Amino acid sequence: MSSQHWLIPATEELGFKLLKGHIVRITDVEGEQVADFVAFNANDPSERLDPGVTLDTVRSKNVTPGDIIYSTRYRPVFTILSDTVGRHDLLLPACRPEMYEVLYDKKDHISCYDNLNHALAAFGIPAADQHTPFNLFMNTVVDADGSVRVERPLSRAGDYIELRAEMDLIVAVSACPCAESACNGYTCTSIAIDIR
Amino acid sequence: MSSQHWLIPATEELGFKLLKGHIVRITDVEGEQVADFVAFNANDPSERLDPGVTLDTVRSKNVTPGDIIYSTRYRPVFTILSDTVGRHDLLLPACRPEMYEVLYDKKDHISCYDNLNHALAAFGIPAADQHTPFNLFMNTVVDADGSVRVERPLSRAGDYIELRAEMDLIVAVSACPCAESACNGYTCTSIAIDIR
Repeated sequence: MSSQHWLIPATEELGFKLLKGHIVRITDVEGEQVADFVAFNANDPSERLDPGVTLDTVRSKNVTPGDIIYSTRYRPVFTILSDTVGRHDLLLPACRPEMYEVLYDKKDHISCYDNLNHALAAFGIPAADQHTPFNLFMNTVVDADGSVRVERPLSRAGDYIELRAEMDLIVAVSACPCAESACNGYTCTSIAIDIR
Repeated sequence: MSSQHWLIPATEELGFKLLKGHIVRITDVEGEQVADFVAFNANDPSERLDPGVTLDTVRSKNVTPGDIIYSTRYRPVFTILSDTVGRHDLLLPACRPEMYEVLYDKKDHISCYDNLNHALAAFGIPAADQHTPFNLFMNTVVDADGSVRVERPLSRAGDYIELRAEMDLIVAVSACPCAESACNGYTCTSIAIDIR
């Protein structure tokens, strides 16, 4: 696989295959933009990146370079090689149309859930009942009293995270289309993907 | 449905149907025992209880009486009616054989994942790729620096939580079989279920 580059326009998505040992860089092009990121074992999509298992093994909601991102089956999916931000989310599900209805009273809103399902369908992966992604650049804060808040991302223009694939993967990325909250700083922008 | 009572022996599981409006009480019989608790829409099992959506709507990892537990589709699954403990888990997945291999170097360990799949199979619900339950009595602490720790449950003998079903449900409960950590106070004991 030679190096590849894509720009995901604001509110859109991308799916791609990533072979073991290759490195993907996800860049927040303009700053304060979340990328919902999911990955499936290319040889058995019943195994996938699992934020909950990652919490259980890394024992921190704030992963850092050197940490491993795990699968549902407690196997390494990615190793974090570098990260210019240091704040991502392992707790919250992908936004979906029902979320926009319940929280913002908006019908038929474009969503990470639909974006990810669309990107994955091209690789033969059926629509999931739910996605709980590794939400890159998403700034979820848990206070001492247990309250959970989503604040503006800490990422600035050009900030990125680099992940090395530890198995052959089908990856999908959604440039989160939520302009209704601080999640993306109230404005949706693009995400760049580079593979080497 | 008349009132029903079951005792789930240590390390075992139970599945049952729960109709809308009925109330289930889950009791930690001897204290410090976690119950992994999952629920599926009885009329469409592609919709299920979702701890991530609950975090997104309730905006707290520490749910309390009056709070709603939500489904993947942002619909109410349960309302918490009463709770004598006040500490449960919405973050971590069910233990599964691979967890015991990776974290404790033990093969073929009994697990909540297998227990739940077994209980659900009797109701025609296929084995899930993963379960992320509402982990009752599980005491997961998130520190200010983001580190995640599982401590001894705060529940004492006879403590319970009561949930009112907001839709017709298939429910499965596993008396967590992990004696290797503080999760169950290093000893596995029974869980009682009462429906009225």
